[in-house]
Amino acid sequence: MLIIDCHGHYTTAPPGLQRFRDAQLKRIANATLPEPVMPRISDEEIRESIDNNQLRLQRERGADVTLFSPRASAMAHHLGDEAVSSAWTRACNDLVKRVVDLYPENFVGVCQLPQSPEVPIAHSIGELERCVRELGFVGCNLNPDPSGGHWTAPPLTDRHWYPFYEKMVELDVPAMVHVSSSCNPNFHATGAHYINADTTAFMQFIEGNLFTDFPTLRFVIPHGGGAVPYHWGRYRGLADMLKRPPLREHVMKNVFFDTCVYHQPGIDLLAKVIDVDNILFGSEMVGAVRGIDPETGHYFDDTRRYIDALPLEPRDKQRIFESNARRVFPRLDAILRAQGR
Amino acid sequence: MLIIDCHGHYTTAPPGLQRFRDAQLKRIANATLPEPVMPRISDEEIRESIDNNQLRLQRERGADVTLFSPRASAMAHHLGDEAVSSAWTRACNDLVKRVVDLYPENFVGVCQLPQSPEVPIAHSIGELERCVRELGFVGCNLNPDPSGGHWTAPPLTDRHWYPFYEKMVELDVPAMVHVSSSCNPNFHATGAHYINADTTAFMQFIEGNLFTDFPTLRFVIPHGGGAVPYHWGRYRGLADMLKRPPLREHVMKNVFFDTCVYHQPGIDLLAKVIDVDNILFGSEMVGAVRGIDPETGHYFDDTRRYIDALPLEPRDKQRIFESNARRVFPRLDAILRAQGR
Repeated sequence: MLIIDCHGHYTTAPPGLQRFRDAQLKRIANATLPEPVMPRISDEEIRESIDNNQLRLQRERGADVTLFSPRASAMAHHLGDEAVSSAWTRACNDLVKRVVDLYPENFVGVCQLPQSPEVPIAHSIGELERCVRELGFVGCNLNPDPSGGHWTAPPLTDRHWYPFYEKMVELDVPAMVHVSSSCNPNFHATGAHYINADTTAFMQFIEGNLFTDFPTLRFVIPHGGGAVPYHWGRYRGLADMLKRPPLREHVMKNVFFDTCVYHQPGIDLLAKVIDVDNILFGSEMVGAVRGIDPETGHYFDDTRRYIDALPLEPRDKQRIFESNARRVFPRLDAILRAQGR
Repeated sequence: MLIIDCHGHYTTAPPGLQRFRDAQLKRIANATLPEPVMPRISDEEIRESIDNNQLRLQRERGADVTLFSPRASAMAHHLGDEAVSSAWTRACNDLVKRVVDLYPENFVGVCQLPQSPEVPIAHSIGELERCVRELGFVGCNLNPDPSGGHWTAPPLTDRHWYPFYEKMVELDVPAMVHVSSSCNPNFHATGAHYINADTTAFMQFIEGNLFTDFPTLRFVIPHGGGAVPYHWGRYRGLADMLKRPPLREHVMKNVFFDTCVYHQPGIDLLAKVIDVDNILFGSEMVGAVRGIDPETGHYFDDTRRYIDALPLEPRDKQRIFESNARRVFPRLDAILRAQGR
């Protein structure tokens, strides 16, 4: 059985990337500054940034492959304009590609998108195509709130998003619904904005009819589905009150939750109420919560332990760890098959 | 043992109340219309609206007392201006007071506040004092987002809110953190905005130092604490990363969760990870989710059944059903004692 971690970000990128970003942000404030150029980053620097972080933890925790995307909190689509977002996104995706090329058995690429507030999502299609067709990436992170906490974009079920969904369907790649940092002081990024976005997206899918229009469109809602599994009765009841079909038919053929829930009782609940076919192993390691849980002595984000402890049959765990991810990300499956795995 | 439901709204008010509201909203659109007058509503109408709804369900489900406040989704602080919010709030609170007077053993009042976007919260102190001192109410519902889904107010830990907190402390009344309807199409009110607000408030309390400044200030976070118990490991870990004290000391002396979680696995999780002293029985009956769960044959919001099924000692259930509410709402305790209960 392969252990596929569907949720990893390059949070440890070499400092050159941040220098480039800092120069971008300075230029937003002062347009007379020159357009920044991405500093040269050596393979050695990339190896250093990975070997003692994600790669070490993969080995220690016994994971085989991580779906790897640029740092989510740094996407910050609300900073600067479309050109800034576009240049930043290319730089981030290109760096992930270099990680994948250095460690082709350990990492598979998932791309950031050059979203920008008020800019049509169709403008993100080019980068998706580049990343999938040229760089070999297998999915993307779609930000439902490029404004960074002001929620000015239309709901994910709005036709605004349809041109992008058409391309996702054509390329057969899913999106993880993932917001970035928050410029609204009400929302702590990883403690409120992320979880709220997960919950919000799910409720939008209940209200809408998106999967009637796109029967093969697939989304991963990270962080264990936000508040949804804990309030599963509420969502079943709301679907009923809103005269929607049962969630199993209406949403859960197309929506999947990862296991980025950082304690055993949360994972127990997830596995109890959500069909095992809708759960993908994920850890977001070296991410939002990096410490050791004093109650267990293990890292909060070592989510493999929680899955291992579930009272499930081996074949169900195999779904969570491997086969669901291969089904939701067919291009990942193709890469693994080509590697003989 | 008394069964105290800490979370009930007057969702079934006689139609006269809505006629008044409609006239208010028409006048917002056309300022030449006369100031609306609240229609006379008879005791008979009030009895009709209660007897076959909240009172019947209290009896069927075996609850004794409900903390009763105006309909939360109808507060809609974002509609109209301060004068509109103020007149609407008085009308709603006065009607709750009439319910309490007709059924003094079954209902105890909790007030809506005349909040309005961009208006200082100090302007809500007068209505809080009126409701507590003159009408005998025991708490209030505080809306952290009077903009209705645009989140333009400062976080609850900001000094903006302090004048109101000072009055809460002086009167010894807690607030339930409760948003209202959403005018942001991203957020379904009861399916996203409510739950997001619960999660957001909790994270604000982690980030801030509010309870150092107000050691006796108390909040009930409804809907089982939003996403928080499901992600309890995440919040413990974030508190640690942010160098805050452990949650038990930093937040949980002052913050309580109700049991408005509409399925057994959710309540099981809540009782497993949250100290029993921080859990207050609540149902929000005749509220967000009114249907029957096809999986159990019982109403989703009949939360008493879920508590009854918990593997807890009777003394712990007594805390959830009664003594925690009496401790968090001392004025409720005083009313019950005066009734010999």
